[in-house]
Amino acid sequence: MSQLVNGNETLPVELKTLYGPVATEIEQSEAVLRRELTSEYVLVDEMVRYGSWLGGKRLRPALLLLAAKAVGTVNDDHLTLAAIVEMIHTATLIHDDVLDEAQLRRHLETCNARWDNEASILLGDFLFTHAFYLASTLESTFACGTIGKATNTVCEGELRQIRSCHNYELEEAEYVDIIDAKTAALCCCACRLGAHYAGAADEVVNSLADYGRNLGIAFQIIDDLLDVIGNEAEMGKSLGTDLGQQKPTLPLIHVLSHLPEAHRVGVLAAIEDPLGGLGVLSPWMERLGTYEYVRARARWFADQAIAQIACLEENESLRILRQLPEFVLERSR
Amino acid sequence: MSQLVNGNETLPVELKTLYGPVATEIEQSEAVLRRELTSEYVLVDEMVRYGSWLGGKRLRPALLLLAAKAVGTVNDDHLTLAAIVEMIHTATLIHDDVLDEAQLRRHLETCNARWDNEASILLGDFLFTHAFYLASTLESTFACGTIGKATNTVCEGELRQIRSCHNYELEEAEYVDIIDAKTAALCCCACRLGAHYAGAADEVVNSLADYGRNLGIAFQIIDDLLDVIGNEAEMGKSLGTDLGQQKPTLPLIHVLSHLPEAHRVGVLAAIEDPLGGLGVLSPWMERLGTYEYVRARARWFADQAIAQIACLEENESLRILRQLPEFVLERSR
Repeated sequence: MSQLVNGNETLPVELKTLYGPVATEIEQSEAVLRRELTSEYVLVDEMVRYGSWLGGKRLRPALLLLAAKAVGTVNDDHLTLAAIVEMIHTATLIHDDVLDEAQLRRHLETCNARWDNEASILLGDFLFTHAFYLASTLESTFACGTIGKATNTVCEGELRQIRSCHNYELEEAEYVDIIDAKTAALCCCACRLGAHYAGAADEVVNSLADYGRNLGIAFQIIDDLLDVIGNEAEMGKSLGTDLGQQKPTLPLIHVLSHLPEAHRVGVLAAIEDPLGGLGVLSPWMERLGTYEYVRARARWFADQAIAQIACLEENESLRILRQLPEFVLERSR
Repeated sequence: MSQLVNGNETLPVELKTLYGPVATEIEQSEAVLRRELTSEYVLVDEMVRYGSWLGGKRLRPALLLLAAKAVGTVNDDHLTLAAIVEMIHTATLIHDDVLDEAQLRRHLETCNARWDNEASILLGDFLFTHAFYLASTLESTFACGTIGKATNTVCEGELRQIRSCHNYELEEAEYVDIIDAKTAALCCCACRLGAHYAGAADEVVNSLADYGRNLGIAFQIIDDLLDVIGNEAEMGKSLGTDLGQQKPTLPLIHVLSHLPEAHRVGVLAAIEDPLGGLGVLSPWMERLGTYEYVRARARWFADQAIAQIACLEENESLRILRQLPEFVLERSR
């Protein structure tokens, strides 16, 4: 954390290696983020700065910059856009932490833990609106439109998910459709912006956007898996929160659809207990092969992602884009 | 409420009269709002539609359309922009109601009362992001930039205010600066967009923007006064919420700065009690002339608003713009 707080943070070594060909550009977009996320009012400034440290993996800026460099060169617009997608992602994280009543994110206190829910809601709004303002400083309305649409889809997806809590009849296809909106739309948007602003042809832009979309779905499936099998210390955040909110994610959907009928009532009752669900469900998930099934579904989307960019001309950035799905599948935090 | 729920709502008669020359255009922008605020997902759709009924006075669309018609003619862009500013205003109201734990707004249940805080936060985000997307459908980035900047200023103002709670040393100048950001920025933006998209010269656009800004400040001062002297039944919302949150609004700032020193400790203790504050403060406010002082400050800004547009050529819309400050001062809800 001290590394973060002094304001001279650099990308952690493992991400520098992972994002190799765009590591420098990610650092540059971080500089845009730090320059933009300030306020002349000291009480606002400390919150806004804190917000910019919560993002972590910088996956969306990386996707944007890798997509750009896979098909062309990175320019100043890309650096601004990379900062924008990270800002929007952070806004959604801050609001998510309020929704989840989470206390920790990446080993840092969440904003709602450090301040309160009220200030966190407004901080998220501040980041959203600043991102949109920043998008308007680019020349055409393309960025505003693409980002506005994607972000609206993200919100719609989150609303659909929250209104599906306690709905134990939700089918896998609808779950995929929801995470496509709430998570994959912004990854898709990042890749689209990267390729478009590098001057790629429309069909190349669309291939990279589809890559981002499939990668985003795989990412969220693994995220939902880690919420039931992850290591809290390693993840640096509270786990089991999905289940505690009766959110029907893929592990739960799988276990419920394969559970012997005689056990269903008991398991459903356990799930409705905010603390007891995981203890009852874990043995069933092991027995029914839930973890393997969920991993296989994530792999399917990861493979789809790779297939989308199979025809693009090879270069160092494209090679990393081909490796990222594997990283997403293997990650433990 | 039944009038609202059937989806064929028309502007209430008193607003039709008040906004006379643009009443038809307000109805048209309402149609844009209703067309835009839908979702193909039924659980999202019911929330989004409900959100569009919460706005009430339609002051910001009216300002935008009146500013347009005061200096030119209303076109399709204006109708879209009027829907956008109302959407943003509604998003801030929905988040405000979560912050205030309010149960009623304009005699309707708030979203947080009808659903919950989680869904309300996401619904606000949905409205914000949809507004930005809609702004990107106009030709240039002017609307995106103007709206993005103003909305960001609104959020910064709200953050400053919430972080000033319990700060009984806040000075009037800082209070005015905060409401200038949190309320007046969007009124200013509405007038700017109206005039700009009617093709007015820059100095005319700036005069109307300054008009909107001063009117917005007067509006918020009266809003803060009504929170301590309003009639709950007439207002259709919970009152005393500012005081319950120890928010230093002008009535409180005035009373504290004029209170005999011997009573200060007792009054400050009463304010910190979420329920007891108003009972102790009201007699002091009467005795110290707080209501008159606050009204006089609101009048000063209302007069400033009128002065900004004194040189513009007379027409029916300009005449209404000159009357609006009086309406703002006299309103009781």
